[in-house]
Amino acid sequence: MTDQHKYVYEFSEGDASMRNLLGGKGANLAEMTGLGMPVPQGFTITTEACTRYYADGEKISDDIRAEILTYIGKLEKITGKKFGDPENPLLVSVRSGSRASMPGMMDTILNLGMNEAVVEAFAKKTGNPRFVYDSYRRFIQMYSDVVMETGKAYFEELIDEMKHARGVTADLDLDADDLKQLAEQFKAEYRNKIGSDFPSDPIEQLFGAIRAVFRSWDNPRAIYYRRMNDIPSDWGTAVNVQSMVFGNLGDTSGTGVAFSRNPATGDKGLYGEFLMNAQGEDVVAGIRTPETIDHLKERNPEVYNQFVEIVGRLEQHYRDMQDMEFTIEEGKLFMLQTRNGKRTAAAAFKIACDLVDEGMITTEKAVTMIDPKQIDALLHPQFDVAELKAAQPIGKGLPASPGAACGQVSFTAEQAAEWGKAGKDVVLVRLETTPEDIEGMHHSKGILTARGGMTSHAAVVARGMGTCCVSGLGDIKFGADGKSFSLGEHTFVEGDWISLDGSTGNVYGQAIKTVPAEIGGYFGRIIGWADEYRTMKVRTNADTPVDAAAARAFGAEGIGLCRTEHMFFETDRIAAIREMIVSKTVEQREAALAKLLPMQRGDFEGIYEAMEGYPVTIRLLDPPLHEFLPHEEDDIVALASEMNISVEELKGVIDSLHEFNPMMGHRGCRLDVTYPEIGAMQTRAIIEAAINVQKRHPEWKLVPEIMIPLVGEVKEFNFVKQIITSTADAIIAESGVALEYLVGTMIEIPRAALTADEIAKDAQFFSFGTNDLTQMTFGFSRDDAGKFLDAYYDKKIYENDPFARLDTVGVGRLMKTAVELGKGARPDIKLGICGEHGGDPSSIEFCQSIGLNYVSCSPFRVPVARLAAAQSALQSTINHG
Amino acid sequence: MTDQHKYVYEFSEGDASMRNLLGGKGANLAEMTGLGMPVPQGFTITTEACTRYYADGEKISDDIRAEILTYIGKLEKITGKKFGDPENPLLVSVRSGSRASMPGMMDTILNLGMNEAVVEAFAKKTGNPRFVYDSYRRFIQMYSDVVMETGKAYFEELIDEMKHARGVTADLDLDADDLKQLAEQFKAEYRNKIGSDFPSDPIEQLFGAIRAVFRSWDNPRAIYYRRMNDIPSDWGTAVNVQSMVFGNLGDTSGTGVAFSRNPATGDKGLYGEFLMNAQGEDVVAGIRTPETIDHLKERNPEVYNQFVEIVGRLEQHYRDMQDMEFTIEEGKLFMLQTRNGKRTAAAAFKIACDLVDEGMITTEKAVTMIDPKQIDALLHPQFDVAELKAAQPIGKGLPASPGAACGQVSFTAEQAAEWGKAGKDVVLVRLETTPEDIEGMHHSKGILTARGGMTSHAAVVARGMGTCCVSGLGDIKFGADGKSFSLGEHTFVEGDWISLDGSTGNVYGQAIKTVPAEIGGYFGRIIGWADEYRTMKVRTNADTPVDAAAARAFGAEGIGLCRTEHMFFETDRIAAIREMIVSKTVEQREAALAKLLPMQRGDFEGIYEAMEGYPVTIRLLDPPLHEFLPHEEDDIVALASEMNISVEELKGVIDSLHEFNPMMGHRGCRLDVTYPEIGAMQTRAIIEAAINVQKRHPEWKLVPEIMIPLVGEVKEFNFVKQIITSTADAIIAESGVALEYLVGTMIEIPRAALTADEIAKDAQFFSFGTNDLTQMTFGFSRDDAGKFLDAYYDKKIYENDPFARLDTVGVGRLMKTAVELGKGARPDIKLGICGEHGGDPSSIEFCQSIGLNYVSCSPFRVPVARLAAAQSALQSTINHG
Repeated sequence: MTDQHKYVYEFSEGDASMRNLLGGKGANLAEMTGLGMPVPQGFTITTEACTRYYADGEKISDDIRAEILTYIGKLEKITGKKFGDPENPLLVSVRSGSRASMPGMMDTILNLGMNEAVVEAFAKKTGNPRFVYDSYRRFIQMYSDVVMETGKAYFEELIDEMKHARGVTADLDLDADDLKQLAEQFKAEYRNKIGSDFPSDPIEQLFGAIRAVFRSWDNPRAIYYRRMNDIPSDWGTAVNVQSMVFGNLGDTSGTGVAFSRNPATGDKGLYGEFLMNAQGEDVVAGIRTPETIDHLKERNPEVYNQFVEIVGRLEQHYRDMQDMEFTIEEGKLFMLQTRNGKRTAAAAFKIACDLVDEGMITTEKAVTMIDPKQIDALLHPQFDVAELKAAQPIGKGLPASPGAACGQVSFTAEQAAEWGKAGKDVVLVRLETTPEDIEGMHHSKGILTARGGMTSHAAVVARGMGTCCVSGLGDIKFGADGKSFSLGEHTFVEGDWISLDGSTGNVYGQAIKTVPAEIGGYFGRIIGWADEYRTMKVRTNADTPVDAAAARAFGAEGIGLCRTEHMFFETDRIAAIREMIVSKTVEQREAALAKLLPMQRGDFEGIYEAMEGYPVTIRLLDPPLHEFLPHEEDDIVALASEMNISVEELKGVIDSLHEFNPMMGHRGCRLDVTYPEIGAMQTRAIIEAAINVQKRHPEWKLVPEIMIPLVGEVKEFNFVKQIITSTADAIIAESGVALEYLVGTMIEIPRAALTADEIAKDAQFFSFGTNDLTQMTFGFSRDDAGKFLDAYYDKKIYENDPFARLDTVGVGRLMKTAVELGKGARPDIKLGICGEHGGDPSSIEFCQSIGLNYVSCSPFRVPVARLAAAQSALQSTINHG
Repeated sequence: MTDQHKYVYEFSEGDASMRNLLGGKGANLAEMTGLGMPVPQGFTITTEACTRYYADGEKISDDIRAEILTYIGKLEKITGKKFGDPENPLLVSVRSGSRASMPGMMDTILNLGMNEAVVEAFAKKTGNPRFVYDSYRRFIQMYSDVVMETGKAYFEELIDEMKHARGVTADLDLDADDLKQLAEQFKAEYRNKIGSDFPSDPIEQLFGAIRAVFRSWDNPRAIYYRRMNDIPSDWGTAVNVQSMVFGNLGDTSGTGVAFSRNPATGDKGLYGEFLMNAQGEDVVAGIRTPETIDHLKERNPEVYNQFVEIVGRLEQHYRDMQDMEFTIEEGKLFMLQTRNGKRTAAAAFKIACDLVDEGMITTEKAVTMIDPKQIDALLHPQFDVAELKAAQPIGKGLPASPGAACGQVSFTAEQAAEWGKAGKDVVLVRLETTPEDIEGMHHSKGILTARGGMTSHAAVVARGMGTCCVSGLGDIKFGADGKSFSLGEHTFVEGDWISLDGSTGNVYGQAIKTVPAEIGGYFGRIIGWADEYRTMKVRTNADTPVDAAAARAFGAEGIGLCRTEHMFFETDRIAAIREMIVSKTVEQREAALAKLLPMQRGDFEGIYEAMEGYPVTIRLLDPPLHEFLPHEEDDIVALASEMNISVEELKGVIDSLHEFNPMMGHRGCRLDVTYPEIGAMQTRAIIEAAINVQKRHPEWKLVPEIMIPLVGEVKEFNFVKQIITSTADAIIAESGVALEYLVGTMIEIPRAALTADEIAKDAQFFSFGTNDLTQMTFGFSRDDAGKFLDAYYDKKIYENDPFARLDTVGVGRLMKTAVELGKGARPDIKLGICGEHGGDPSSIEFCQSIGLNYVSCSPFRVPVARLAAAQSALQSTINHG
């Protein structure tokens, strides 16, 4: 259908289905044209032309240039106007429009086609010289700024000077002569800056503008926006050239924007505003206060009714809430744009439910039309909107864990825990957090760190807890006493109030009231429909009964990852684990482990209880042992005395545990290979806890899933499995309870994926640990990659953080291999994912496509995953059936 | 052919081709039986029975037991003797015999079948009670030690006491009564240790012995031997049950071992020794001095001639030098064993050439019959044999780089370099080495480190230089002043003499003369034949003109890996690279790089000259920048003053470069992505040097190969490639020399292998960096894996060091994927390997099997690789047609 050599389409040639080629704006202008709605005519230069522009070394090739000129000719015929004709000039707008909506990211030029001759004749012809000169000065200003990149500050200064000279305050109070004079000044400024005259040839103007739009696809804010929104850089933008209509032709003209429903609340009914005698930018600029849309009924009932009728048709046609721009030119309505409107999370759920109730859409459609990422906002506390408006951020870090937090600054985890228990609101401020800080983090409303990225310890743990976190705010300088920090010109001491926005990364130097999350009935209805269409289960990563209960409340259908080591950092346990580490004999080690056994068993009982019989996957000890030992001199001395060993001996142990690359060191199942007694103790805790809970709840059928981490070789798996089964079988036999259990492994080492057929012969389940798998597959550590990944984004080598969004090309290929090999060896193998990617919608889609049975994510991501899993299932139905 | 349920074979049922099933000894006994040679009859219990034994939980199953009993019956018929029959007792030996020769690694029991009744009757019947009681006491002793694991020390004490009581010194001087009494004492000791009587039932004795042989397959020295020799643990051992013949029946009896050629020199002619009136163990034990084989001519010319005839037939039959055991029982010759004889490297080459010259074998056969690992010994200095014999090692580390070294102890690289330049022989002794030590290492005869494994910095660099190195000798304790070390009870200060054996890991606390390597004409003939059969090229990893020249002398056909960073550590360069690192702007960085440019260009010119037109692959800067900065306080202070910056500033730079996992950090092409000017400077040096050398040598056609390290994504490759091509093309155009060059990449990140199709579209060659690829695929760092790999070997999870021998299952699968994807995208892509594995014979075989074009290894491994590549090519011809 597509002609390889066709780079330009008239609006009447396209339709809404051609979005990829014409961009969203162009496709919808074409669609409205097809629906017979009043659209100023024009044509769209395709996204492929943009791709060509970059492929050709940022040049518009001769063939595309010729094609554009042909379509200018056609547009002149349709409108009966001519480029550069003083009697009847064709004036056009030139706007970008990409496949995905990128509001405000790229550039627009209005009133193109004006020059002195045109302006003079046009002023006479319209009898409205003020309008004409106003348009002209706007055009010069916009063209200089956007096409020639002069900036616009100096132009604004000239306007201000003129207003000052005339003794007026509003632009509207300047008369035609003033504006004419301004246009002259603007052109002089252009000459001054650029070194040549402002172009008077409309064709030269046009190609300048088209180039500028193409170029704007790659401006820094567009690149940043694409990265934030997962938009590939090779999509390119289309360019829409549209004949101008004027909302600033006088009091019967105007312009406005409107939504078919309220985008903040979702309430049904027209919602919007307009300004008479104005162009679009005036509405946005906020210099004059626009009127709400219902006032249009009084101003021009005929136009209002026509608009309401069009809005109804458009919503019926697109079956979604519409966001529209319109212009009234001397009493005549023109539609300039329509698109599915952006909306708040709350509105999204309400609108989807209402559209179902109105019979406009099916429940499948309702499920697919909500962006799962929006759910986050519904599940966390937010700032009070009024207080937030009055506040100014004093710094911006990474939005590491969403929600809003307000509390008193504390610099140590111990104090944060103490204050938190005493009922204070605490914000924990640290250089970076370590596993030892876990209790203090638990008792904080928010966490702020100077170091660390989106996947730092603080970020990962905070997301898991659903606690607000801003990380990597490098501008923070800590005081030498450790009891103060400065940020810019502000200094804060212990106990001062600050507020964090974990969804934006903003930090405020004051208390801002927060309001708790509210999940309404609409959310429940949608998520209920989602569960009907979903084929993958959604589990949670939870290490404590509290987290497990939270996840159950969010609908988790099991635990996909329970990290046993998180329990070890609590004050009453760390002593026992340290005793185990400094043990010199197996007997000493077993004695220390025996102290841990009842604690672990108690934890597991609590977790089984909280999960009410749903499956629980427990991972054996994973981190390298040095993580449990202190590294600061003072702490070492204190610990040595506490443990009754010499400082030298303790230092010797710490030294011997030092690793060059701890991520690739002595951890995971390697610990069980060297110290089988650790795995034996943990197995005992898991199985005994299950037996106890099973006895208390005969109505449940508990089947603990014991997961061996960091396996790279089947013999290694079997060595540890043998420790597990010999321990477990003996306990079960003795108990008389017919408990079943599964033994499986993380797939997080490339070699495990490559030899998954061998491993699956003996492993009953696989859980993809995509955090480590991503590190090993890319060969970079996420703790270190921050130093160079920005350069990779800038240079467009990577467009996404592979730790946030699964790399389906490389890591995904390994996963696919593992799934195929694993199923080949054991057709009923259980397959899941427990890396951070388990809560990321696009990664969930990939998991669906390779046939995983479940995804597992932090408790607060469970609803996101439920919705994303439903969308993936529906998508895969479309793709495959 | 093989009956699934047949676990036992009479000698007459087998032949030499059944080695895998019958073990080497059993297969050769069967073959000799088939050739009609005098072999005491018996049967072989197969290696599969051993595997069953382990599979059944270390038990001999009922079916195998029954089958063995059947064959005992058959043997009784053949020999006309009976187990336990005092009149005519069947006595047997029970010996292990695996597929691969494992001399002395497993256990043997002789004279089995004796009990009191048998002994008494037998003593009467033979009229030689001394022989009978001697055999009996030997049997009790051996059985107690081997089967019941009592040890043998106490038995030896009893013999000594008896000799003392009798006033004699030699065992032979004890008479029949003495020996009878000893046998009684031995049995009492058995009862005392084991708690039951010594078994008198020959069947019970037999199964005890068989079990002991099976069990010995898994004794620690066998496991260690297998690991050293790449023998899989699942092969198992066969058990040979053979009717006894006695060399200790009197003066017409005897026993001996002989080689058909001299195993030390390869000289043709019978070589061996024998002892009259003795059993085999006496020959080995060295209590009596054996006679050389030619004396047998005088003792018993008939037997001698028969033996010479048999030796001739065996060599003709096996077409290789034979190593044989024989026994003469009352004037009658029996062959107990033949096998291809072990030989020194020098002998191996001579024998192979002689066999070709004698028309016994083809040149192909000559090439395949030499173990490439033996070559090492020919290429490095060795100790003077006489001096070595008189010396006792004082410690043993890892044999990290072969050869012998003798020199004066130095503790710093600076001093080692100074002494070395002054003509002293130096042994550098360090805790561990770092890249900064490179110059001192160059000037040392040997390197000894307390830390680090076979792939530590010291080991890798030493092997590259061909310098002797013993690493990881943890017993070394350094003095507080850093100018002494102790090892056991010895203490050494600066300037003391020590000697190292890098092939065994032995360390001697004295000077031992070394003799230089001598490569004779035999070596040249074999390697010449090898080159005829070889299909893969052999390149070298060389970073300096000296190394490159050495490698050329060994026959390297190019450089597969030139590490540009090694040049940076020399004193005159490190300042410039440090200046680059602390640069704050691109301009500063370029200025520092400009200082490095002429040095790099000079190095490359030297390397091109040394390689005489052969291809040279140069890798761009790879290590993280912090490797170039000091980390000790004193060094930092000194450097800061030298660089004219504050200590704080320098520490700030060092801190900012700190990485949690440097192996997975900011290195490789990531440096060029963040600092493109580094790649540009290096490209300029590479291309300008090539142009200069091309001009000087128009007879060569230089095509530099520029290699981008650590690529994981095609866009990353192309970003750096663009830096290279834009720089190179401009220089070439300006020069007027029509220089071609290639741009390719290391495949060392799993993701590169997984996306090799995309990368191959733009990369002209791949070189597998299997060191890093192994680390990432297994998920462990070779610097840290030492802490747990021993546990993995002990528990038989890994049988080989995957950094020494390529893991063909996991890493190999990634390589195969990369080759297939790469060739799919670019059929003529050049494929090589430049990891340490490129010099390992079994890894070379794998490289041949997946179709690589070349292997690259350190200069001293080049001859090894040439031979191994030829063997792989011949093997692949056999496999594929």
